[in-house]
Amino acid sequence: VSRPGPDLEASGPAAAGLVGGGPPAVAAVMGAGSWGTTFAKILADAGCDVRLWARRPELARSLRGDRCNPQYLPGVRLPASVHVTADAPAALAGAGFVVIAVPSQMLRQLAAVGAARRPGGGVRDLLKGVELGTTLRMSEVVCQVAGVTGERVAVVSGPNLAREIAAEQPAATVVSCTDEAVARRLQAATRTPYLRPYTNRDVVGCELGGAVKNVIAIACGMAEGMGFGDNTRASIITRGLAQTARLGVALGADPMTFAGLAGLGDLVATCSSPLSRNRSLGEALGRGASLAEVVHEHGQVAEGVTSCQPILQLAAGHGIGMSIVEHVVLVMHEGVSPREAMTRVMSRDTGAE
Amino acid sequence: VSRPGPDLEASGPAAAGLVGGGPPAVAAVMGAGSWGTTFAKILADAGCDVRLWARRPELARSLRGDRCNPQYLPGVRLPASVHVTADAPAALAGAGFVVIAVPSQMLRQLAAVGAARRPGGGVRDLLKGVELGTTLRMSEVVCQVAGVTGERVAVVSGPNLAREIAAEQPAATVVSCTDEAVARRLQAATRTPYLRPYTNRDVVGCELGGAVKNVIAIACGMAEGMGFGDNTRASIITRGLAQTARLGVALGADPMTFAGLAGLGDLVATCSSPLSRNRSLGEALGRGASLAEVVHEHGQVAEGVTSCQPILQLAAGHGIGMSIVEHVVLVMHEGVSPREAMTRVMSRDTGAE
Repeated sequence: VSRPGPDLEASGPAAAGLVGGGPPAVAAVMGAGSWGTTFAKILADAGCDVRLWARRPELARSLRGDRCNPQYLPGVRLPASVHVTADAPAALAGAGFVVIAVPSQMLRQLAAVGAARRPGGGVRDLLKGVELGTTLRMSEVVCQVAGVTGERVAVVSGPNLAREIAAEQPAATVVSCTDEAVARRLQAATRTPYLRPYTNRDVVGCELGGAVKNVIAIACGMAEGMGFGDNTRASIITRGLAQTARLGVALGADPMTFAGLAGLGDLVATCSSPLSRNRSLGEALGRGASLAEVVHEHGQVAEGVTSCQPILQLAAGHGIGMSIVEHVVLVMHEGVSPREAMTRVMSRDTGAE
Repeated sequence: VSRPGPDLEASGPAAAGLVGGGPPAVAAVMGAGSWGTTFAKILADAGCDVRLWARRPELARSLRGDRCNPQYLPGVRLPASVHVTADAPAALAGAGFVVIAVPSQMLRQLAAVGAARRPGGGVRDLLKGVELGTTLRMSEVVCQVAGVTGERVAVVSGPNLAREIAAEQPAATVVSCTDEAVARRLQAATRTPYLRPYTNRDVVGCELGGAVKNVIAIACGMAEGMGFGDNTRASIITRGLAQTARLGVALGADPMTFAGLAGLGDLVATCSSPLSRNRSLGEALGRGASLAEVVHEHGQVAEGVTSCQPILQLAAGHGIGMSIVEHVVLVMHEGVSPREAMTRVMSRDTGAE
């Protein structure tokens, strides 16, 4: 199991399942990175009793004692109704629903440890990415490992940089589930004065938007590192979103989802933010650093570095061209320089939009 | 005629007309603000012979002598094939097409002075905004005043901050005309190593995207001035674009235009850029300055200040709610504070996206 580092990205696609009726009074949040911790605070502020699971016992101890995490969320105090533990079964006991907030490539292991042990339990993940080797979306991994059906699984996604929400800055998000009643109950469980959750039934679109945005953020960061400005970034965002929407439609998503909070909203927040790990990594590469140097310095790999290949593979399997993802793959995994990749994009013929 | 100040916005909706066949060799650009001057450079770099008209004789003289405008476009050199003049009839003589780049509220006067005098001539504007008092889009004003039909009029719009394009940073744009042959010829006349023009036939959508984005940029600036971060800005951009698209559909636009370069692309570039006058004005208001103070300091009114009312009126006439435009109108024209306006938006009930 790889060590989950501080996750400063906007949340991504996610999955949720519920047990019993009515708004859930007890929730388990698995993962105490910056987004998991922020989500625990949201649920507590919305009136839930929350169990927050931290993988490392020393982190659980310090969160319990100090009620804050100066490394991940400086200046943010955990509400009294958030109970922190390093004991996964204790966190899950009696939880009306389960939130998973770990890096996407370790979801399968966590789901196997946690949710699958509770045949009646449900799972909700707050992740992004497509699994390496299988090209499954994260909610599909949850369904498969936990043995639950799709309508027990929801996705939460939007322009949701953890530090800003934890600081109670106004934001909106999307709670997506094929079962609208489940989505509405999760909406009630996450509504606070600083967060406006909207419901949506397009799980595929929300999940895909959250996954691909990490790769597009790397491309934006590379352009910025090379000294390009807001026109270039806006062009990358626009063309990247159009390509994501094309893949989404091929997978059965509603194209309008990509124009909404979980598509455009999440993408714009992530590609603009100095808090995004993916954008920062791209920026360092654009300035001339090597991938090895950046990973060595940050001590971890940003989500888009590992997910760009399976996303490109997924697109290729559906006959969809994704030039921006392709160029990130070339830079990440095939030694092409960011400047050479940019020149290749700009030199293509133009046509109708 | 009000004094046109330095225009640092992305370009907005526009209108173009052509005389004769083949790629136009001679073009007139009316208006030597930062965008007009940049457009003259683009046309020259694409191979056209350009006449650039400056309203003020002293500006024409200094542009002719120094080949640069240190106030509007520091560090940028005008190509040798750009001829600067303060004599409008001389600029228009023999021009294959005419580009208008003046603030939207003075378009009618300029069109009357220039294009209407040349029955065979065409007009292309690079403006944003909806005319005060008539709620006409700018291309409609051009058609009306110059007495030409819609297919002679094209719009150029996209993530096109003038200073970045003038510095030859890579960007993309949309050339929109109901007559695709006209659009393709303008595409050829604006294609340079740093600018990729795409054609599009949805003039209404392109024009509306460029007009409303100035108002949304004011709202983003206000949020930033109040200390809110990237989640809030991304939420305003997303909801604002959705509202613009609804109005666009009511006016007969293609909803996909708003997901493209002239919708999303232009909006993201403008709302992110420190170069945007509208965003900067909003930021000053968000920090607590009064509108009178900001206008006094900048010596001019940003486009969105005057266009927010006619846009809201246009939307109301079609039964479309535009809460973000409405709140900008409240702050600009009815003395409501930015903080009060923000609270009103956040306290509304949420529902499906």
